[in-house]
Amino acid sequence: MKSFSDRLYDAIRQKGTPVLVGLDPRWNMLPAVLVQGNEQATWAQKTAVFESFCRTVIDIVAPLVPAVKPQAAFFEQCGPEGMLSLGRVIQYATSKGLLVILDGKRNDIGSTAAAYAAGMLGQESPWGADALTVSPYLGDDSLTPFVDVAGERGAGVFILVKTSNPGGAMLQDKIAEGIPVYRHVAEFVHSLAEKSWEQTQGKSPYGSIGAVVGATWPAQLTELRQVMKRTWFLVPGYGSQGGGAADVAGAFDEDGLGAIVNNSRGIIFAWRSPKYAESFGEKQWERAIEQSTRDMIADLAAQTLAGRLKKGPR
Amino acid sequence: MKSFSDRLYDAIRQKGTPVLVGLDPRWNMLPAVLVQGNEQATWAQKTAVFESFCRTVIDIVAPLVPAVKPQAAFFEQCGPEGMLSLGRVIQYATSKGLLVILDGKRNDIGSTAAAYAAGMLGQESPWGADALTVSPYLGDDSLTPFVDVAGERGAGVFILVKTSNPGGAMLQDKIAEGIPVYRHVAEFVHSLAEKSWEQTQGKSPYGSIGAVVGATWPAQLTELRQVMKRTWFLVPGYGSQGGGAADVAGAFDEDGLGAIVNNSRGIIFAWRSPKYAESFGEKQWERAIEQSTRDMIADLAAQTLAGRLKKGPR
Repeated sequence: MKSFSDRLYDAIRQKGTPVLVGLDPRWNMLPAVLVQGNEQATWAQKTAVFESFCRTVIDIVAPLVPAVKPQAAFFEQCGPEGMLSLGRVIQYATSKGLLVILDGKRNDIGSTAAAYAAGMLGQESPWGADALTVSPYLGDDSLTPFVDVAGERGAGVFILVKTSNPGGAMLQDKIAEGIPVYRHVAEFVHSLAEKSWEQTQGKSPYGSIGAVVGATWPAQLTELRQVMKRTWFLVPGYGSQGGGAADVAGAFDEDGLGAIVNNSRGIIFAWRSPKYAESFGEKQWERAIEQSTRDMIADLAAQTLAGRLKKGPR
Repeated sequence: MKSFSDRLYDAIRQKGTPVLVGLDPRWNMLPAVLVQGNEQATWAQKTAVFESFCRTVIDIVAPLVPAVKPQAAFFEQCGPEGMLSLGRVIQYATSKGLLVILDGKRNDIGSTAAAYAAGMLGQESPWGADALTVSPYLGDDSLTPFVDVAGERGAGVFILVKTSNPGGAMLQDKIAEGIPVYRHVAEFVHSLAEKSWEQTQGKSPYGSIGAVVGATWPAQLTELRQVMKRTWFLVPGYGSQGGGAADVAGAFDEDGLGAIVNNSRGIIFAWRSPKYAESFGEKQWERAIEQSTRDMIADLAAQTLAGRLKKGPR
């Protein structure tokens, strides 16, 4: 099976953009037509609406972007039935040719981490995600089980390095041995990504072990791009969290590769933003999703090296 | 509603022990009678067996211990249907009068963390756990949503501080500003626990925000008990990971309170250990679970201040 890194490389070049659409269904932000006066819905009713909403988003963005990122928390909050919906959303996105990066930020000690990895990673797993986000607080022996399973199944892992939220600084920016904690994590992730690349040596210059680095930290994106030469970046925090196209410029290499930039609320609830409220409004929420996706693709192409993607060889 | 801390306090004193039984169903370790030659079971078949196994464990330990800790990973590895089983196991344990600490090690940025908290914490939530384990890498604004929901619903949170695995040292033991990273986390958790206690000021001298500190680190257990005066400890790593009763002695206060000590494999798969293999063996796996639970209760009572629990006032 092709490595995750090569599959991501192909998908980004095929679509000509590194835009990643986050599937974060929030009940209070859905278009009224979907809620249909059912404000007091049970969780089972909510998850059915979430699933239908996500399928529509997938239909709209599948021709435009390489991948989607379902956020596990919004399905898990609906209880066990929400997880059935999440499973079907992953399957549906896969059937539409999208790569699926499941945002679960899971982890545990080694033998338990192996259970998460085996269950979630790879199309032969019961969840069938192409990649999973993972938290590093438990250290090296909690991360290697994900790396092993990812290697065996052509799957990917994105390890939290520098998260987009302000509070992330509490631990991640503490200086230890002369460098911030996130930099220690970055160096370990880099070593895993190097090994991952050496094992496959495919078309992509990157390994299948990636890093999460927030769009809200432009300087760190540039710093880490320099020291993590074989590491894909998953960049959250674009749009509603304040990161813009210029902020993520440092995440890309000279070919416009090396990063995928996530936008959740700014795309799936685009009709709520002033930019699209007037031209589309709530009734045309689907058209707002399409237009905001196209606009983000254009913004990244104009303001970052991702603009070179369309001009590069296929 | 009574605070989680007071409910845990009552449950520990009622049962006279701080033993916490971990529900970690592992397919390859189950008694043969449950697997019944079905080694090539589908995940849906496996999760049905996991659920039935956990119900039996709950039946055996419910009269003996205050709480159980289902490990989300072993259900999640079975795919979406595994999560339905997990939901039913939580309900069943609750119906048997046990407190349920869901070991999910979840977290995310603030607004997403709120979704996990709302979905998982409190009997009015769709998962209905009494408490949840949470990872601190995303920092303060990722932790406060759990604290808020826990306070509103009489639920609890256990934040990872010093994990039981060797690799945990990679980040947690890095020295920053003169103290290890885990100590920085401990001080933040301590401040949350203080606030939590001030809000309720119930019978228990602890707040409803707890810390995870591994049995494999006896010196740190003692150190942290001294500086976290209002913080319950959830102590994993007892038994199969190498921690013994003497190792966890530092976790308790003078009344034998302040900690719950988890044992998963050492109890639920007790018939596999040399100690119980001869006297019970695989056919009497249920009796081995009961005896190993009673033995752990006795060991903690003999070697730690938890021995005072039975003698204290009710």
